[in-house]
Amino acid sequence: MRGRSLRLGRGGEFDRLRAIFAALGAAGRDLGDDCALLSVGGRTLAISIDLSLEGVHFRTDWLALREIGWRATAAALSDLAAEGATPLGVLVSLGVPGNPKGLPDGRRQRRAGNASPAVQIMAGVGAAARSVGASVLGGDLVRSPRYLVDVCVLGVAQRPVRRSGARPGDGLWVTGRLGGAGLALAALRAGRGRRGGRLAPASRRRFARPVPRIAAGRWLARRGARAMIDISDGLAGDAGHLAAASGVGVAIELERVPCWPGVTPFAAVRSGEEYELLVAMPRRFGPADAKAFGRATGLPLTRIGACIAGRGVRVTYDGRPITPPPGFDHFRAR
Amino acid sequence: MRGRSLRLGRGGEFDRLRAIFAALGAAGRDLGDDCALLSVGGRTLAISIDLSLEGVHFRTDWLALREIGWRATAAALSDLAAEGATPLGVLVSLGVPGNPKGLPDGRRQRRAGNASPAVQIMAGVGAAARSVGASVLGGDLVRSPRYLVDVCVLGVAQRPVRRSGARPGDGLWVTGRLGGAGLALAALRAGRGRRGGRLAPASRRRFARPVPRIAAGRWLARRGARAMIDISDGLAGDAGHLAAASGVGVAIELERVPCWPGVTPFAAVRSGEEYELLVAMPRRFGPADAKAFGRATGLPLTRIGACIAGRGVRVTYDGRPITPPPGFDHFRAR
Repeated sequence: MRGRSLRLGRGGEFDRLRAIFAALGAAGRDLGDDCALLSVGGRTLAISIDLSLEGVHFRTDWLALREIGWRATAAALSDLAAEGATPLGVLVSLGVPGNPKGLPDGRRQRRAGNASPAVQIMAGVGAAARSVGASVLGGDLVRSPRYLVDVCVLGVAQRPVRRSGARPGDGLWVTGRLGGAGLALAALRAGRGRRGGRLAPASRRRFARPVPRIAAGRWLARRGARAMIDISDGLAGDAGHLAAASGVGVAIELERVPCWPGVTPFAAVRSGEEYELLVAMPRRFGPADAKAFGRATGLPLTRIGACIAGRGVRVTYDGRPITPPPGFDHFRAR
Repeated sequence: MRGRSLRLGRGGEFDRLRAIFAALGAAGRDLGDDCALLSVGGRTLAISIDLSLEGVHFRTDWLALREIGWRATAAALSDLAAEGATPLGVLVSLGVPGNPKGLPDGRRQRRAGNASPAVQIMAGVGAAARSVGASVLGGDLVRSPRYLVDVCVLGVAQRPVRRSGARPGDGLWVTGRLGGAGLALAALRAGRGRRGGRLAPASRRRFARPVPRIAAGRWLARRGARAMIDISDGLAGDAGHLAAASGVGVAIELERVPCWPGVTPFAAVRSGEEYELLVAMPRRFGPADAKAFGRATGLPLTRIGACIAGRGVRVTYDGRPITPPPGFDHFRAR
């Protein structure tokens, strides 16, 4: 088995990505999947790479360096979760601003303890990896004008779940509650997230220390998930990716969307970088199964709609169509 | 089997890297190896990641975008070569300057053919991967103030060769001829490498399109290589890494070092980013074996010294010690 992955760029970059893969002689339905798949020794390896740049994906005045490392790693691990894979390890390339300002030399660093920026970021990387049983296998470290953290994750999938397996009639389910990351982002943008600000700790944590839904992804894969994607572009946008890859339509009932406290369903479906899972389950999967999921993972699993014949995403609120469907304003720190 | 890799930083960054891995709870002799090793389904996966930044590792006025992609990929694949591994695939994170200047939008790009910067870089990545039978498995693409190419390579090693297996009495051998990359770099720095300049095409190619020594590494692994490293920091520096990892000393006879035309042995052992292999072979490996290597790979294999009891690198020229041993001025484009 060999499947390719390429992260869908932000905004209207799909054409560009298709051109790139066309130039490489690669194409096909798996183009935009969460992970690449590679058969090694009779097992299926799931691999993904995820680049986080200062000024694009994070700001150093919003997050501690340790949180920057955690967040970049959790985002990459979320791709393994969406594949139903079990993480093995991570490799990390780090760009860190150089001396004289950013980076203590060896001697100064020993005096200051393990306080160098690279060490702080890697402590977050290591903590995120350990939280899902993975280890840090290797890395590269380069001086760079701005911080950058590029994380490559490797896992094994017994039954990999692609984006492309949904069929009309499948139920559409989502883990957790949506909107917390967007709430935190809005507060940070408004300057309310810093020390002494009005950002609730739980919301801040949701943004700064997202939890990759590894156990949830594995549980859903074992229970016959047909298609799965992690919510990084917002529920509405990612539902569109799943629908396109599967060649189906998706109908979302907005009033069913599980929302973070204080967030409306309209905001919840636009909130990106939530790192919850959107999954198409066979029709027979029902409320009792969702309860079993809750007992196994401690998370709610909510049916928010269904896969239907056709294409695209249709959103209703109490039966009335919402046109156009709520989209996603992607986080741009700049 | 689980081995870790962390690229040794440029200059005096070893303490920093040790602190990072100490913070992760990881340590051991394999710390600085070329690849991380991971056992999957009874096979040994070799993995490495290698970050190339504009202004640090390359300049866009020295290299075409396609060459930048090739070079970054070849550098990462060279780590697999030094492990004796067979490449499977690569994943690439790309940072590309954004609109309005750097990156055509979908429509403008279609009009211009596949000429977008990201496509050009990926064409080089794809060509380098194909040249060793690997495929591009996936990637990430982000707008960035400067170009960056981070390449994660995956391979399988039947008999992985670490840096740490050399023993006193082993012969020390090197593939190819050294100094061509340094020659090109000096010319580029002096402004002689651009169109109409005086840089010989073969030297320029050596810098712009290095060839990862995959077949050579596999051949040497099969023939019992005890320790192997690719020459990225210069022969003298990398010999020091191999000696330290193996707990041996290394004696190099400078007059034996195979030099690129027009390069002195003193310059050849300082030249970095050569991507040839330095290998410790058992004492019984001799000239007839080197000839067989040449027939198999088309490359010279030259005995330049031996591993000895003790530690560090000793360099002689016609029997006289060179003190201090010639070091390596690492390429800094800035």
